[in-house]
Amino acid sequence: MAYINVEEGIPGIRSLVLFRPETGKPLYDLAQVLLRGPSPLSEAERELIAAYVSHRNDCAFCRDSHAAASRCLFGDEKSLVDEVLQDMERSGISEKMKALLTIAGKVQILGNAVQENEIAMARELGATDLEIHDTVLIAATFSMFNRYVDGLASWTPDDPAVYAEMGARMAEKGYVPPQPKSI
Amino acid sequence: MAYINVEEGIPGIRSLVLFRPETGKPLYDLAQVLLRGPSPLSEAERELIAAYVSHRNDCAFCRDSHAAASRCLFGDEKSLVDEVLQDMERSGISEKMKALLTIAGKVQILGNAVQENEIAMARELGATDLEIHDTVLIAATFSMFNRYVDGLASWTPDDPAVYAEMGARMAEKGYVPPQPKSI
Repeated sequence: MAYINVEEGIPGIRSLVLFRPETGKPLYDLAQVLLRGPSPLSEAERELIAAYVSHRNDCAFCRDSHAAASRCLFGDEKSLVDEVLQDMERSGISEKMKALLTIAGKVQILGNAVQENEIAMARELGATDLEIHDTVLIAATFSMFNRYVDGLASWTPDDPAVYAEMGARMAEKGYVPPQPKSI
Repeated sequence: MAYINVEEGIPGIRSLVLFRPETGKPLYDLAQVLLRGPSPLSEAERELIAAYVSHRNDCAFCRDSHAAASRCLFGDEKSLVDEVLQDMERSGISEKMKALLTIAGKVQILGNAVQENEIAMARELGATDLEIHDTVLIAATFSMFNRYVDGLASWTPDDPAVYAEMGARMAEKGYVPPQPKSI
């Protein structure tokens, strides 16, 4: 049971956005532009950063939904998602993405935890300013979403099939705020 | 020096929003609706939650600017802001606000750190669902802003006068994204 009186049977952030649509709109706008708007990082890579940070924040709802979206977007390479969640350093993801995920992991701890040498390493491996920016902002954004979803104890479904379906929808349609009675 | 090539002499989040206005817009929209839109919490109280969380996240830029905004909005009671930042439990703020700040402090740690008895305590002291919601979302949002600002090492001015002026502007005008060349 969520800590506040949200509609039952609506999972995670969707229930909170239906409770408070005024704040829900900019939250969905942010997710849409950050994860689906133009960026040198692919949508699959951006969803992977979101899932990685959510995993580190122990937020099952965000981890499982964004991991599912990332798997859909990676297609034939979808096993990379589980490799990264299991052991990022030893995964088959590119060295540049490892450097960016290292930065994301530091942001998950705290902004001040990011070290200059980690930025230098990402740059050496080809990361641009925009890629570094988007990585930091995705990691910061999910440090918010994770706290919002779990801090109000919103419903986290257990069934993996729910996340597979959710991830497919997120991969295909992006982030559109839920509408009352149209769910 | 920031980790990415932002315009020099522009402090904190404003430099990042000028670097990436597409993501800056929903970030400012969120701050505006959450801190200035209709809420049962006063603007002064909401800015105080923002400053308190930023203080706990060791983000000097957000702490000092939102503390300054909160002081302006509290007016004659502005000493409450420094009392809360120094020792929230022993401050002169209301018992209900102490209960909400306790929840905000838990959200700062992690979403899952919030305990049912802390929610019950806030409710006993008169907090409504909407107040609990807004407290959690403000705490989550500043867990994002703090990481964004510090994770990219954006410029944090040292001069207290800069924050006093910034706080007065935030209290009066709210959150309007900076425009290139109009700063």
